[in-house]
Amino acid sequence: MPVKSLPVKVSGQGFYDVSQAAQAMVHDTGILEGLCTLFIQHTSASLVIQENADPAVRHDLQRWMNRLVPENDRLYTHTTEGSDDMPAHIKCALTATSLSIPILNGRLVLGIWQGIYLWEHRVHAGQRSIIVHIAGDVNPAL
Amino acid sequence: MPVKSLPVKVSGQGFYDVSQAAQAMVHDTGILEGLCTLFIQHTSASLVIQENADPAVRHDLQRWMNRLVPENDRLYTHTTEGSDDMPAHIKCALTATSLSIPILNGRLVLGIWQGIYLWEHRVHAGQRSIIVHIAGDVNPAL
Amino acid sequence: MPVKSLPVKVSGQGFYDVSQAAQAMVHDTGILEGLCTLFIQHTSASLVIQENADPAVRHDLQRWMNRLVPENDRLYTHTTEGSDDMPAHIKCALTATSLSIPILNGRLVLGIWQGIYLWEHRVHAGQRSIIVHIAGDVNPAL
Repeated sequence: MPVKSLPVKVSGQGFYDVSQAAQAMVHDTGILEGLCTLFIQHTSASLVIQENADPAVRHDLQRWMNRLVPENDRLYTHTTEGSDDMPAHIKCALTATSLSIPILNGRLVLGIWQGIYLWEHRVHAGQRSIIVHIAGDVNPAL
Repeated sequence: MPVKSLPVKVSGQGFYDVSQAAQAMVHDTGILEGLCTLFIQHTSASLVIQENADPAVRHDLQRWMNRLVPENDRLYTHTTEGSDDMPAHIKCALTATSLSIPILNGRLVLGIWQGIYLWEHRVHAGQRSIIVHIAGDVNPAL
Repeated sequence: MPVKSLPVKVSGQGFYDVSQAAQAMVHDTGILEGLCTLFIQHTSASLVIQENADPAVRHDLQRWMNRLVPENDRLYTHTTEGSDDMPAHIKCALTATSLSIPILNGRLVLGIWQGIYLWEHRVHAGQRSIIVHIAGDVNPAL
């Protein structure tokens, strides 16, 4: 089936690696050449591909983004859902809601330093939902 | 036919909801499982998925973006097309030109609070063009 | 074959037009209606669709982005790979890693002022890799 759900448990702001889960979903389809699209069903968490080697990259990225889009900015009028809510919506607008990654030889063609992350922008724990669409050829050479 | 045009009339800066139009285009194809891609043919208007409930979210998002990317910044050298033009190009680089959304049970799998918006970055009225590609299976279970 | 590699030589920060290369890859498939997805295999270079007319637009965009995400920000802890590395990762998070463009009449449906660019964020010369996935119908009317 080409459309599946990938639930992700989160425990507050930060990056949650879904690379292995996505690779496993591609593998299970048996598709060797094609396209995998991830879509996150939220407006306060987003998707990003970032370096998977030095955790300091993600640490700095989180701090930089929090400085660019701080809580309690006097500009905000949408404040009833918590001080982290409006910043989360802005961060989503600046990052990705969908990502499409080609499949070759049965695997996502991620670069060697690329990881796929759910980027949680809210401070509380919870569960997020990514919908994954996979299409392509099981026998591309035939 | 998988590729169709979705024209959108705009009346200046702001968010124009195209969720219902996109859902209707998906419905018309009869496709039950698949992928819908929206592509905007402009470099001064973009696409964004945002909260569809409280209009204050979009109001704050617009004001925040206008503060981040103001008109009449002395950095700009591209000024002949109006003071709103170069900010519009920058805003496009920071947001999305294409969005891909899976289709399940004949509908886009939007989260309950997600709306698809054309985000107009210029101040004048006009018409914008989104191209919609829809692919998938009419009878996925067969 | 739907998945191909598009190598791009770069000579430092800036925009590298891949529109013609992508159009040629679409043409070579013989596909008349479909979808072309570009995916960049890096976390310090990204993809962007921008105005292809006045080069001042890209010049201003580069300068604006360098001001928003400067080198040697005291916030950065990831500094061992060069002063341009952490800014490059942040710029990637703010721009696109994948772009999907519909194909109609055998061509990408780019707007008249739209060019597809690889946006190099690092200062040194090198080679970057974009993976291109193309799917669709050779004979859509049959």
